[in-house]
Amino acid sequence: MSEKQALLFNNDAFYQAFAAHDLEAIDNIWDTDAPVACLHPGWAPLTTRGDIINSFAAIFDGPAPPDITCLGAQALLYGAVGVVICYEVIEGNFLAATNVFVQRGSKWMLVHHQAGPTEEPPEDITKTPENPIN
Amino acid sequence: MSEKQALLFNNDAFYQAFAAHDLEAIDNIWDTDAPVACLHPGWAPLTTRGDIINSFAAIFDGPAPPDITCLGAQALLYGAVGVVICYEVIEGNFLAATNVFVQRGSKWMLVHHQAGPTEEPPEDITKTPENPIN
Repeated sequence: MSEKQALLFNNDAFYQAFAAHDLEAIDNIWDTDAPVACLHPGWAPLTTRGDIINSFAAIFDGPAPPDITCLGAQALLYGAVGVVICYEVIEGNFLAATNVFVQRGSKWMLVHHQAGPTEEPPEDITKTPENPIN
Repeated sequence: MSEKQALLFNNDAFYQAFAAHDLEAIDNIWDTDAPVACLHPGWAPLTTRGDIINSFAAIFDGPAPPDITCLGAQALLYGAVGVVICYEVIEGNFLAATNVFVQRGSKWMLVHHQAGPTEEPPEDITKTPENPIN
């Protein structure tokens, strides 16, 4: 598996945990040593790991925890730091997301997430060739 | 100047170029070697340097090129990669932004930008102690 594929695999694991409303999996994906931040759309920026995990707990425990799918992920590598940009499909609406990961051995751990509004993607977005997952 | 201060200095240079509608300065801030991406709110993701520079040209050449100010910037360091999160004040509206930089000698070059909706920040946001600029 190439480094880009490993990075995209870990990005996909984040969205699988999000879709399953699996807080333990979310907790295992966020790095425990490096500085972290999370910019949920419409929320104040979160800059502690505790606040970030609690934000996912609040989303999962809310009255309507959302379905979420990641599409068209693209990996950008900067040595031991990787950035993934992708579309998120949430209840039929599209967002664009930035996910920043740091490399820890064979794994990539999440250190930053932002999602926000975007244009509706083209219909063939799932066919992005470099994405082995979607 | 610490690495965090240098990173924040270069982040501030990006917003000064943006505020001045200075396309040449914007062009000098985006890295020329590493992969780049830009997620303007409501736009399709841009993943080539040419498309990114052209997007700023279109913004600056538009009928109402926006005033923009950066507030409350915070630097997150991952070796030779730095992430800055900050508020953007555009025509009195607040966005939250992610800017990713790679270190090139004493400079940090921009490789990724996303801005999107956020909660209105607290009034004392300009007093963030680690930010030497605002």
